[in-house]
Amino acid sequence: MKKDRIRCESLRGKMMDPAEAAAHIQDGTNLFISGFTAGYPKMIPQQLAERARAGERFKINLYAGASTGDCVDGILARAGVVAWRRPYMSDRVMRERINRGEIAFKDDHLSRLSAQVRAGDWGRVDVAVVEAVAVTEKGHLVPSTSVGNTPTYVKMADKIIIEMSNAEPPGLEGIHDIFIPEDPPYRMPIPIYRTSDRIGKPYIEMDPSRVVAVVSHEEQDRCAVFPEPDDTSRRIAELILDFVRHEIQRERLPPGLPWQSGVGGVANAVLTGFMDDDFYHDLDIYSEVLQDAVLDLIDMGKVRAASGSAMTLSERGRARFHKELYRYREKVVLRPVEISNAPEVIRRLGVLAINTAIEVDIYGQVNSTHVMGSQLMNGIGGSGDFERNGAVSFIVTPSTAKDGKISSIVPMVSHVDHSEHSVDVVVTEQGLVDTRPLAPRQVAEAVIEKCAHPDYRDLLWDYYRRAVRERGGHEPHLLGEAFAFHERFMATGDMKEEAAESRRPIADSS
Amino acid sequence: MKKDRIRCESLRGKMMDPAEAAAHIQDGTNLFISGFTAGYPKMIPQQLAERARAGERFKINLYAGASTGDCVDGILARAGVVAWRRPYMSDRVMRERINRGEIAFKDDHLSRLSAQVRAGDWGRVDVAVVEAVAVTEKGHLVPSTSVGNTPTYVKMADKIIIEMSNAEPPGLEGIHDIFIPEDPPYRMPIPIYRTSDRIGKPYIEMDPSRVVAVVSHEEQDRCAVFPEPDDTSRRIAELILDFVRHEIQRERLPPGLPWQSGVGGVANAVLTGFMDDDFYHDLDIYSEVLQDAVLDLIDMGKVRAASGSAMTLSERGRARFHKELYRYREKVVLRPVEISNAPEVIRRLGVLAINTAIEVDIYGQVNSTHVMGSQLMNGIGGSGDFERNGAVSFIVTPSTAKDGKISSIVPMVSHVDHSEHSVDVVVTEQGLVDTRPLAPRQVAEAVIEKCAHPDYRDLLWDYYRRAVRERGGHEPHLLGEAFAFHERFMATGDMKEEAAESRRPIADSS
Repeated sequence: MKKDRIRCESLRGKMMDPAEAAAHIQDGTNLFISGFTAGYPKMIPQQLAERARAGERFKINLYAGASTGDCVDGILARAGVVAWRRPYMSDRVMRERINRGEIAFKDDHLSRLSAQVRAGDWGRVDVAVVEAVAVTEKGHLVPSTSVGNTPTYVKMADKIIIEMSNAEPPGLEGIHDIFIPEDPPYRMPIPIYRTSDRIGKPYIEMDPSRVVAVVSHEEQDRCAVFPEPDDTSRRIAELILDFVRHEIQRERLPPGLPWQSGVGGVANAVLTGFMDDDFYHDLDIYSEVLQDAVLDLIDMGKVRAASGSAMTLSERGRARFHKELYRYREKVVLRPVEISNAPEVIRRLGVLAINTAIEVDIYGQVNSTHVMGSQLMNGIGGSGDFERNGAVSFIVTPSTAKDGKISSIVPMVSHVDHSEHSVDVVVTEQGLVDTRPLAPRQVAEAVIEKCAHPDYRDLLWDYYRRAVRERGGHEPHLLGEAFAFHERFMATGDMKEEAAESRRPIADSS
Repeated sequence: MKKDRIRCESLRGKMMDPAEAAAHIQDGTNLFISGFTAGYPKMIPQQLAERARAGERFKINLYAGASTGDCVDGILARAGVVAWRRPYMSDRVMRERINRGEIAFKDDHLSRLSAQVRAGDWGRVDVAVVEAVAVTEKGHLVPSTSVGNTPTYVKMADKIIIEMSNAEPPGLEGIHDIFIPEDPPYRMPIPIYRTSDRIGKPYIEMDPSRVVAVVSHEEQDRCAVFPEPDDTSRRIAELILDFVRHEIQRERLPPGLPWQSGVGGVANAVLTGFMDDDFYHDLDIYSEVLQDAVLDLIDMGKVRAASGSAMTLSERGRARFHKELYRYREKVVLRPVEISNAPEVIRRLGVLAINTAIEVDIYGQVNSTHVMGSQLMNGIGGSGDFERNGAVSFIVTPSTAKDGKISSIVPMVSHVDHSEHSVDVVVTEQGLVDTRPLAPRQVAEAVIEKCAHPDYRDLLWDYYRRAVRERGGHEPHLLGEAFAFHERFMATGDMKEEAAESRRPIADSS
């Protein structure tokens, strides 16, 4: 370890090997770790997995900022040592175990977690394991590539274990803006009025006497890197950029609103779309996770400020970022997730929020989390924070999945994460519907006609028209067949295909 | 009319009879009215209904603060002159017409409407008709018993018609706190840090040159007055008060958080519960609608401050309120609904939010608006503003409806307004479940056991256990029978009773 990263004298004596450090974590430990797609610990989880492999029987309750890498969620899930996991995760094995009921998982709006931990809702913070790039002279912590819930975990922890990352440059110091908001009942606003505002300290205040161990490593984040946008993502992005341009030109939206986009292909495509579009400049990005495309936009001089809770970069992106950190650091702010996702700030700034769905129904209800109603995908993450509070909330999804065998537009979603009241605009590669000026029946007609894939339009029209005729109401539904699409898929592997025993001709609905 | 209520010289000449004033409203007019359960216009709507009765054919688009009385929504719905209605309404005839698709209705979070009108999302504000108790020397408007969206409607309207109420005392002047927040992208916080904070003016700023008519009337608000709490409401209130006391005593909740409760029996019962309970004192009420019980609590010296967007009082309550207005005015603040329901403020203050549901499912998803999935009841109102942003969000409902033939706890709600992520505590008269520390399967088991009515527990256990066994997953559901309760009710009038042709024994699920 390069000792000069630990500028606080009293902590130098606490360096030890990971196995010794991990001994602080025992059966029943509430373990709170850094990590928000990036910046998670790399050594201690490995020790826990090794102990399990060696026959030790124990369970921990694992709390992070959001998703981590295989070297946390993957190996701990496979080792079978996780009793509870909160909040968002995206690991395949962990997901399977959650769906089998072997790991208890609670899905929370990401903005709410830190305050709940401070209130004691999650029990004692026994041990915090946090990745850092430096400790200051006074013993304060400089986190690495994410902030997440780390400030609160460090504040509340009985014992703190620091994983000093030698893979991330000490020059990250200064990129973070650490502000823990007050808790009710007597608290003041979060004083962010512009995307770029810095309101806190460049480090996490820490009591060094609670640090029980410092370990060091050379491991990089291994972030899920998203492929280049495909045609579908590009088409969705184009529809959004055209719509916003149109709204601004009609003076229905002011120019200069900040953008948020969830993680993934469409998010990347929107950012890529900005590159070739002269209309968009001086961009503010007030989001959760900053990806490679943000670096491109900064290089093009298109970014006024980019704020998030993590930098999640490809290996190539990371090299670029490290090389000219001094320059990117002027544009990028990394905040605690309770600030990056603060409803108060999102609403005040008037964020244009873009989040993806698993499926959307004809009335604009959105399922972001559960496949076929029961199987958890990843979790709601911050999508609720942004959808509910954005100035305009977009929900995007390709119109089909599984080679066209699943329609993302369904009569009724099999699980609801975002109600129609929180969703303004529905977008697929087929088209875009602004639901704001429409009553529910008008929404249904527009979504079927403009967003659904042509292969499913007749089925959707058939359902909707019969629902209007047979049941009526403000949002006509036929409860007996609201999930017929899903049932067909579960029976035949194709939402279009009836199981042999239950074929029924589509009623004439003209 | 008592001319001294119009202290602005230039407006005195604009007094006219209602028929003449109503001539400003023609076919296609976007009509924006005051009214938020109370404080709605009483004369102009009547004129419109009379014109329709006399054979004139026209349609208006009607926008209010929330629900109004029969003399607005009732007579206009019966007259068939409403094309669009936004937002919340509670009139029986209007509801029927909305459900038949004859009136287009869009259900919005109440906090969002004013900003949307200012942004132009709802089209031109052709005419605003607003009830007032005075106009100041400079031509500013003192509203009556509600504020709602009136400040924005007055600000944006091409033409303003004032209905001067002689039934409400001019002494209401000073009770209102009118603050229109800035709009994005460059705006500052809403500077409310305590329930009692006054941040605006005691009147609505108005350009008198846009006033086209002043009419006067002696009509009182006719508010839906809720009966004394019954045993069920009292039991629910008791469970909530016990729970909050317990949380405070365990130091998991700070004392002094403000309370919000929706309109109706349980809300009244909670407030009544405070009266007999020495634990609760120095209460802050940060709510939407203030009802009679607030006066009782003020009289008992239990209220530090009561903030809302309307006073909705019984006739007896009104008399009391008028008589000692000088005293109540010190405790009560009436605000625009975008402030009373501001997510920013609700979250900052840490409001304890209590809202009612039509039905709740075993995983804590909530339906507040649609009976049997299709038929609109009233609308979401402000429940989403409070549930999503409260420090602790309670959803309350009696465990059954229709003499036990409907279970309010169902396998899957037939419509979702509030997702499980926004709901903390589920309460029926049977019991209370704090879902916050529970994974979904644990929530289901607790809700079935503690909240469901005993008559429905076996049916719910049967569904849940088979869903776990047959489908598994994070939130096990059997999509083919998720709405079996609802389908049974629609077929037989009882959620417990199979239709004759489809009886199936309940599987042994022990």
